[in-house]
Amino acid sequence: MCGIIGVVATSPVNQLLYDGLLVLQHRGQDAAGIATSDEGRFFMHKGPGLVRDVFRTRNMRNLVGNVGIGHVRYPTAGSACNPAEAQPFYVNSPFGLLLAHNGNLTNSDELKREIFLSDLRHINTNSDSEVLLNVLAHELQAAANGFKLDADAVFRAVANVHRRCRGAYAAVVLIAGFGLLAFRDPHGIRPLVVGRNETEQGPEWLVASESVALDVLGYEMLRDVAPGEAILIRTDGEFMSRQCAPATVQAPCMFEYVYLARPDSIIDGISVYESRVKMGEYLADKLRRTHPQLEIDVVIPIPDSSRPAAMEMATRLGLPYREGFVKNRYIGRTFIMPGQSVRRKSVRQKLNTIPLEFKGKRVLLVDDSIVRGTTSREIVSMAREAGAKKVYLASAAPPVRHANVYGIDMPTKGELIAAGRSEEEICREIGADGLFYQDIDDLKASVRAINPTISHFETSCFDGCYVTGDITDEYLYGVENQRGQARVGDDGEDGQLDLNLVTSSEQ
Amino acid sequence: MCGIIGVVATSPVNQLLYDGLLVLQHRGQDAAGIATSDEGRFFMHKGPGLVRDVFRTRNMRNLVGNVGIGHVRYPTAGSACNPAEAQPFYVNSPFGLLLAHNGNLTNSDELKREIFLSDLRHINTNSDSEVLLNVLAHELQAAANGFKLDADAVFRAVANVHRRCRGAYAAVVLIAGFGLLAFRDPHGIRPLVVGRNETEQGPEWLVASESVALDVLGYEMLRDVAPGEAILIRTDGEFMSRQCAPATVQAPCMFEYVYLARPDSIIDGISVYESRVKMGEYLADKLRRTHPQLEIDVVIPIPDSSRPAAMEMATRLGLPYREGFVKNRYIGRTFIMPGQSVRRKSVRQKLNTIPLEFKGKRVLLVDDSIVRGTTSREIVSMAREAGAKKVYLASAAPPVRHANVYGIDMPTKGELIAAGRSEEEICREIGADGLFYQDIDDLKASVRAINPTISHFETSCFDGCYVTGDITDEYLYGVENQRGQARVGDDGEDGQLDLNLVTSSEQ
Amino acid sequence: MCGIIGVVATSPVNQLLYDGLLVLQHRGQDAAGIATSDEGRFFMHKGPGLVRDVFRTRNMRNLVGNVGIGHVRYPTAGSACNPAEAQPFYVNSPFGLLLAHNGNLTNSDELKREIFLSDLRHINTNSDSEVLLNVLAHELQAAANGFKLDADAVFRAVANVHRRCRGAYAAVVLIAGFGLLAFRDPHGIRPLVVGRNETEQGPEWLVASESVALDVLGYEMLRDVAPGEAILIRTDGEFMSRQCAPATVQAPCMFEYVYLARPDSIIDGISVYESRVKMGEYLADKLRRTHPQLEIDVVIPIPDSSRPAAMEMATRLGLPYREGFVKNRYIGRTFIMPGQSVRRKSVRQKLNTIPLEFKGKRVLLVDDSIVRGTTSREIVSMAREAGAKKVYLASAAPPVRHANVYGIDMPTKGELIAAGRSEEEICREIGADGLFYQDIDDLKASVRAINPTISHFETSCFDGCYVTGDITDEYLYGVENQRGQARVGDDGEDGQLDLNLVTSSEQ
Amino acid sequence: MCGIIGVVATSPVNQLLYDGLLVLQHRGQDAAGIATSDEGRFFMHKGPGLVRDVFRTRNMRNLVGNVGIGHVRYPTAGSACNPAEAQPFYVNSPFGLLLAHNGNLTNSDELKREIFLSDLRHINTNSDSEVLLNVLAHELQAAANGFKLDADAVFRAVANVHRRCRGAYAAVVLIAGFGLLAFRDPHGIRPLVVGRNETEQGPEWLVASESVALDVLGYEMLRDVAPGEAILIRTDGEFMSRQCAPATVQAPCMFEYVYLARPDSIIDGISVYESRVKMGEYLADKLRRTHPQLEIDVVIPIPDSSRPAAMEMATRLGLPYREGFVKNRYIGRTFIMPGQSVRRKSVRQKLNTIPLEFKGKRVLLVDDSIVRGTTSREIVSMAREAGAKKVYLASAAPPVRHANVYGIDMPTKGELIAAGRSEEEICREIGADGLFYQDIDDLKASVRAINPTISHFETSCFDGCYVTGDITDEYLYGVENQRGQARVGDDGEDGQLDLNLVTSSEQ
Repeated sequence: MCGIIGVVATSPVNQLLYDGLLVLQHRGQDAAGIATSDEGRFFMHKGPGLVRDVFRTRNMRNLVGNVGIGHVRYPTAGSACNPAEAQPFYVNSPFGLLLAHNGNLTNSDELKREIFLSDLRHINTNSDSEVLLNVLAHELQAAANGFKLDADAVFRAVANVHRRCRGAYAAVVLIAGFGLLAFRDPHGIRPLVVGRNETEQGPEWLVASESVALDVLGYEMLRDVAPGEAILIRTDGEFMSRQCAPATVQAPCMFEYVYLARPDSIIDGISVYESRVKMGEYLADKLRRTHPQLEIDVVIPIPDSSRPAAMEMATRLGLPYREGFVKNRYIGRTFIMPGQSVRRKSVRQKLNTIPLEFKGKRVLLVDDSIVRGTTSREIVSMAREAGAKKVYLASAAPPVRHANVYGIDMPTKGELIAAGRSEEEICREIGADGLFYQDIDDLKASVRAINPTISHFETSCFDGCYVTGDITDEYLYGVENQRGQARVGDDGEDGQLDLNLVTSSEQ
Repeated sequence: MCGIIGVVATSPVNQLLYDGLLVLQHRGQDAAGIATSDEGRFFMHKGPGLVRDVFRTRNMRNLVGNVGIGHVRYPTAGSACNPAEAQPFYVNSPFGLLLAHNGNLTNSDELKREIFLSDLRHINTNSDSEVLLNVLAHELQAAANGFKLDADAVFRAVANVHRRCRGAYAAVVLIAGFGLLAFRDPHGIRPLVVGRNETEQGPEWLVASESVALDVLGYEMLRDVAPGEAILIRTDGEFMSRQCAPATVQAPCMFEYVYLARPDSIIDGISVYESRVKMGEYLADKLRRTHPQLEIDVVIPIPDSSRPAAMEMATRLGLPYREGFVKNRYIGRTFIMPGQSVRRKSVRQKLNTIPLEFKGKRVLLVDDSIVRGTTSREIVSMAREAGAKKVYLASAAPPVRHANVYGIDMPTKGELIAAGRSEEEICREIGADGLFYQDIDDLKASVRAINPTISHFETSCFDGCYVTGDITDEYLYGVENQRGQARVGDDGEDGQLDLNLVTSSEQ
Repeated sequence: MCGIIGVVATSPVNQLLYDGLLVLQHRGQDAAGIATSDEGRFFMHKGPGLVRDVFRTRNMRNLVGNVGIGHVRYPTAGSACNPAEAQPFYVNSPFGLLLAHNGNLTNSDELKREIFLSDLRHINTNSDSEVLLNVLAHELQAAANGFKLDADAVFRAVANVHRRCRGAYAAVVLIAGFGLLAFRDPHGIRPLVVGRNETEQGPEWLVASESVALDVLGYEMLRDVAPGEAILIRTDGEFMSRQCAPATVQAPCMFEYVYLARPDSIIDGISVYESRVKMGEYLADKLRRTHPQLEIDVVIPIPDSSRPAAMEMATRLGLPYREGFVKNRYIGRTFIMPGQSVRRKSVRQKLNTIPLEFKGKRVLLVDDSIVRGTTSREIVSMAREAGAKKVYLASAAPPVRHANVYGIDMPTKGELIAAGRSEEEICREIGADGLFYQDIDDLKASVRAINPTISHFETSCFDGCYVTGDITDEYLYGVENQRGQARVGDDGEDGQLDLNLVTSSEQ
Repeated sequence: MCGIIGVVATSPVNQLLYDGLLVLQHRGQDAAGIATSDEGRFFMHKGPGLVRDVFRTRNMRNLVGNVGIGHVRYPTAGSACNPAEAQPFYVNSPFGLLLAHNGNLTNSDELKREIFLSDLRHINTNSDSEVLLNVLAHELQAAANGFKLDADAVFRAVANVHRRCRGAYAAVVLIAGFGLLAFRDPHGIRPLVVGRNETEQGPEWLVASESVALDVLGYEMLRDVAPGEAILIRTDGEFMSRQCAPATVQAPCMFEYVYLARPDSIIDGISVYESRVKMGEYLADKLRRTHPQLEIDVVIPIPDSSRPAAMEMATRLGLPYREGFVKNRYIGRTFIMPGQSVRRKSVRQKLNTIPLEFKGKRVLLVDDSIVRGTTSREIVSMAREAGAKKVYLASAAPPVRHANVYGIDMPTKGELIAAGRSEEEICREIGADGLFYQDIDDLKASVRAINPTISHFETSCFDGCYVTGDITDEYLYGVENQRGQARVGDDGEDGQLDLNLVTSSEQ
């Protein structure tokens, strides 16, 4: 998962992009980058780490211009990511292009081969974002055909990108001296919204992964970018858009609603917060239906993302809602010291209990989802140590049993606790007195309840159905393996930069 | 406010102190430091910034030894702090001493004069912690009187520190080749707890500002250090303690319960969380009593510290409790760019609303306290913009009308919205439809309810009664002025270090 | 002026390139960069500053592979250089190319226009090296014509580069997965040599600006790269070369011999040291001829580059040779402190006198050349203060009266003391008792004496004859102006990076 | 060896101290520090590395005040130095003292014990400078005896320092709110000079290790500080001095003249340059006397410090003097890369030959001294490879056969090529055709020739006579061992800081 942002404004955009990336920081914490354009020239700074650590005054000073894009990065399954491959990426031919991307191409190996053999283009990293950029570059060159670039050529190029690329992608692109391009894959798996701000100098436009960036930066939400649509904003503020893909089924990623997105975002017409409340409602109803005799004294959320569901469950079940866990906001590192044993880090350093809320009680813990299960196991055990008489666990999402190939950082299938286990087995593994999963249909109903016009969702992690229709067992096998290797190759704790091309950072 | 920690263990303590400071990070974010001792030699690293930014592998590697102390710093009113005066502080005569301190001495100017004139000691900073250290050093030298240091001499020295120093102070001190000393002022204004961990190599001891550090680091809570008590732990693990001050009234700082401490801490036998729940209970009762006709649809906390009170108010009033505000966890900076206008930062970059929870409703917002009032004003206005029909605001603490001189970072009296204003006037200033403050007696009752053996609290910010009995109008006037100047002298955004003596930091 | 190096070896080249850049450091101290290639992938690190400051262990670790290039940079007249535009430069289309360049293109503005309009390529900096790279990229794409790259295509591309580019250039280029290309402009203005090292794994090849790099790195000097020639070394060690330009007059830059190159280098068959000795011989003869009565007690060099000439003058004139000046090897900065007056820096912080060698003597100071004249003036005055009775100054080079457009950092014409002044006027300006310049013909004869096969030299600074034949008054006027502006735009003392594209550095 | 500087001026001294340390940089390159005083408060910055790397704008900005001291450090034999123990050192009791020291105490172990047992003072490093500071602190406290500090007390304290300390020491000390103290050991082994500058605001005073600092900073040389003398300059510019030690024989370190000091310095009335010229004269005479038949074609110095001697030898012998070696000014590092073999670094990366000056010639190479012999061996072999027919080597100093205990960085006895070898054996080891050492009496005569009032010199490295009379075999044995250990403990190439107390560095 990543966060992207792009803006065409009437005054310098460096601080605005910085503020915007902070708002999107939850979408990726391992690298950040900003690129701007001024009088046809590009400026960029990027590096590993949080936004607040990557950008210093001297970097910001160099990011001049009223047009720019930004990116926060999370390493994704499906691409063996180098921790230093920060975005945006750059190519100088044709025109000068800078791209930032959220998602994952599922045919990037083939594309890479094509790009090298027929387009003579060099790909220097393992990032599928560099592949996406080069496909776009090639198609733009072909579409422009030696003539001056115009909007029609750009839209035709995007149409060809859609034809060649498979997977999930939402991208923002700076075209030197021309403008800002933004587009979303034909299924609309990854989110992208566009907003507008009126100024005395004319309209300003902002494109971002989540609507909360618009709210915080003072832009008015215009609409979601449609699946397959491209939006082009010229440097002078002219706004154009075109549908560049044949009609397909829209299938927003379900995980955005479950836990990825901020609750105050609205994605494809659906308030994330409201969808989570609904999940709590459906789950409470199921619980009452399936376990009418179950005695519970209190509902306790695992902070932060499960709060809306937990709160609604409490209301619906007529039970008190209590914050029994306190989250430690400040997270540090484990240092490896020669000759010293390593202090074990655990969930206990991220969460602590309020014994009062557990002592002698039958507690229902609510989490947004259960992935590896290791956290759940520790939390259940902490609840018991705090004095709980019974510990039940509810998951607002169904069991996660399949790999994700659309740009979410998810463990390999082998690491998923629910892969190859029944709910009873999972419950036993976790050590809970009861485990209650949301049904997949209820999950879909929860989200559709807010915007019934969306009929499908990308729910492959739950049901193994990959909406792009091209995911073979071989591919999934490759993802598992790559993923393993990527882990090995990780630069580890020091997070230092493998300095590759077009990756800039600073002393 | 600051956080302090000290440990005598049976294995290296660098990672443990680091983890402990992370747990105490909420008590001070502008500087951090760790010092350790090994075979009679000291090692130290400190600098400006968050714990995670101050310590790198190379620093940790140098912090060898099984004994050490740590500090996180917040600039306090009453001492014109240099942002770089990170702690611990060091003097080499007598014995070699390192001290970390939480609190504020109210007679530090006189002490400084005495130290220079009669003790010939040089104070190089404006920090009262350096003063406290030098008073202790002088008294230790006098008590040892040229002979070998023993526990009795140390306790007599602490007794003399209590005789000479006024104000609030909790301190941890490393004595080279001897052990760890910890003491708390005779009124026990600032908190300090001691815990123990059994190992095969013998007992380990941990002293910290809050009990949550014990929980997270796996130590068993032993007890609070008593007001006026000194605790001495020899390097080999021998534990001694002595009451070093004549009996006085114990008066823990009320603000620890109101918002400073973590909810999962227990201070002087009082669970912070429980006290906050009680504050909600008393405030709900007062509201029902004074405004029986008031119609409210929902109770919404201002995250994070007001949650327990808000939750209890909702329960007590039979109203739904909803999380209408989302907090942005990632905070950045405002860069000053030559020739660019500064983007206005505001509460809106820290909080965002969930409109669903406000639209058409009469909302009761609950905050832990109201200090300057600027945040409250913005929050009320955000609630209205989100569609609230009526916006009421409740404060779990009474109006804050007086300066703090005991080590809490509080604005000058002139900046307090409640100074010189009635509750009606404050309500008007803030723009709320109703404003409900806790009564001071109810606040005290809330906390005493959890531990009735504590009869007094340091509540000067609310009632102007300074428990140490030595606070004159001249002193308060000086605090206001110093505070103003300190602000002017601040090194500003880049947080760069005034590199003074014994202040070390590193690339 | 810059230094370049390229290598194809049989083991990792990171340390070798680093050591090589140290040897070439005198050719450029304001930025440095190394790029390597491994299995078709590029790795690069570059930044502002000296080689020893730019590269740290973590950077070196990332520079994997047996093939690579390096660059040290000095800002050159003729291109308004950004201090951060460190080389190598990269383009990914076609093939993936990395280029490092020493020299200056005199038609880079036209080329830039062409590149953008017909080749649709974006140039993001003011560096003519980026222009050179893009011309090469375009010609390679055209020559390869969609087929697999081969040596013939590369040589044809270089031939087209020679056709399109004017000025002085020596370049090394990495072609991804293919090999190392090196070429030199048709007049051979800037130097380039090639050397070879036999290993058990096969031959290794090194290309560098000066032969001293071969000596120090243990390579055997093979020969100079010929003017207009291209050398291509495949990744597997295969060596090919071709003359890619029609025959033109060879004209090595005279300034390399006068002061740029290290004395232990051999350029175009001419030992720099020997040529300097010869300059001393010719100048001594002229002095004896023109001033037979002049009484001199001692010959004193201005260290370091004038030593060989001064020594030979002393021998030839039968006079003692003495080191009267001591050079300070450690140079620092002038800090601008608010409210403090700036301490005047001067030649005196770079040179100090040994009074013994001046007191009561008639001294002949020898310098390699006189450019602005400000240093000469101070040195003459220091000699007098040290007690000299008479101070004569000899310059091993003729008066410098014209701008340089071939890549040497030379002040604008207006700043040259000899521009528009007779020798007598210059002598008066400098305050010497006599000033003796080398004749231009003697200078040429000095160098030709070592290798009579070289008939021409690039001596435009002395005689205003620009060998490329395309230098108009308009161009020179433009150079003067650009140069002035570039100075203004300089990032100044902190040497911070304008982080542009493909410029990478690291924390 | 180290360099020290102290100043009392009428305007800010930060830039002046920085410039002064640059001039003294040859005396120590591994750490640097500056401390200043303003209105009784100290400011300090220090760290590992060269002056130009240690100080940045933000550090300099903090170094306020018109009074200050500075230090450049070289690790010395006799004290197992931690590379991070940068100076100045600080103690706050009594008065506040900051000290920078050049030299080595030979009884520091006893002093350390005394300081701890009777003075109760903690020493936190292995640096004898910290010992010296604490002895001074104790004596100052005793001398002041609770009364106000005055000059008499200071001088009495220095007298006691002389009584207690053995070895070589020159020190500058800041006394908070009082002034600058400088003193030199009773034998005057390490150099110290004092200079003066008249300004409109009154006189300014500068104390430094070498007179060249006075020259470059524009101060007039007043005189050498006498052995055993103390100089005290009050903050207001009042100058006082007193002889604080009983008369002893003055014995300046001979190595200052041989190679440590800059040639343009004057130490104890002796121009370093002139003494080196004299060494050449004596050595030439000896050579003519002992080898009248020896045929030599050219005299070639090993740059830089042997130039004056070599030049004079050439003149005296009637032979040409030529610069056959070129020194590489830019020195880098050897990086240890996992899995890569290390490129061998050698003298060849520091020196390169000009073959013209060697080919077919009988060359006499001249060096200032021969220590380990490894460099000499490589140089002789390089001369042969460059074509020399015969290679003779002359050393301006006698064989180095004994350890140094007075603060010079010298290898252990076991590493000295001359220890236990005759001159013939050394010649054979080095591979020269002849080896000519200066006689010890000639060396002394060379230096005395410039100032006959100095009758003795510290020449223990040559003759094993230790002037302080307290150096036992046990002590020397300990030095050898410590030295070996210190090497092992070195933090190595990355030069990172062991951050100890009072060691400050920077972000």
